[in-house]
Amino acid sequence: MKYVFIILLAGLFSCQCTSTDEAAIQEINQVILKQQKAWNNGNIEGYMQGYHKSDSLRFASGGNVSYGWQTTLDRYQKGYPDKTIMGKLTFSAIDIEMISETAALVFGKWELEREKDHPHGLFTLVFRLTDDGWKIVHDHTSSKSN
Amino acid sequence: MKYVFIILLAGLFSCQCTSTDEAAIQEINQVILKQQKAWNNGNIEGYMQGYHKSDSLRFASGGNVSYGWQTTLDRYQKGYPDKTIMGKLTFSAIDIEMISETAALVFGKWELEREKDHPHGLFTLVFRLTDDGWKIVHDHTSSKSN
Repeated sequence: MKYVFIILLAGLFSCQCTSTDEAAIQEINQVILKQQKAWNNGNIEGYMQGYHKSDSLRFASGGNVSYGWQTTLDRYQKGYPDKTIMGKLTFSAIDIEMISETAALVFGKWELEREKDHPHGLFTLVFRLTDDGWKIVHDHTSSKSN
Repeated sequence: MKYVFIILLAGLFSCQCTSTDEAAIQEINQVILKQQKAWNNGNIEGYMQGYHKSDSLRFASGGNVSYGWQTTLDRYQKGYPDKTIMGKLTFSAIDIEMISETAALVFGKWELEREKDHPHGLFTLVFRLTDDGWKIVHDHTSSKSN
């Protein structure tokens, strides 16, 4: 019985194991890098693959909150109609914190290098492990101006 | 042995129980309401009781990130030297999402009613269950202007 107890305890704490976390962190990091690459190729649909394709996706920016993958895509396509306006996107200071086996918080900085300006700011993301892998379910982005 | 197994499994899944979540959500809600009340009494130290007293506390606002409870308190005291500048704080649209037994995400809106202006915006908070109860360990606040 003692043996069974130890085995079960090992199972109980398996969700804390470092290798699982490390694999998840690597996958999340890849999602973010793919987003950056897609953006810099002028591919907003590719960038949007990092977001959960759900009506519950929440995008908070400044004082506005919008919901839904399609709404977010439409907003990006309207706001960034060509590569000049999209500029060169760089993410930095990425900090990925596992909260559970299926949830993670990601903090970081963003900047756009464009011909005429250089907007930049911070983001807080919530990732969830979905059927399609790790996806952003909540994005709070702010810019330097506030 | 079967009996032991069932008991252990019950323990394994106890973190999913609704009553635990509900109790945590109520406690977190109380922390937020106390912050609002303290602010509206001109009590910044009281407001700061909602934050984890740690050097690792992260406060992201616009393009700036600062760390530490004391730094955050100093910044608030410098930015809001009297009750007129503090104004009347209201939190709204509070959405508390439990991530684990010891972590929660809180989304919401903030506004300040002041004589001459009406700043407002959004926040994303990460709460952790600490030795002092539920406390904010990460705050990302943005204002309408961005």
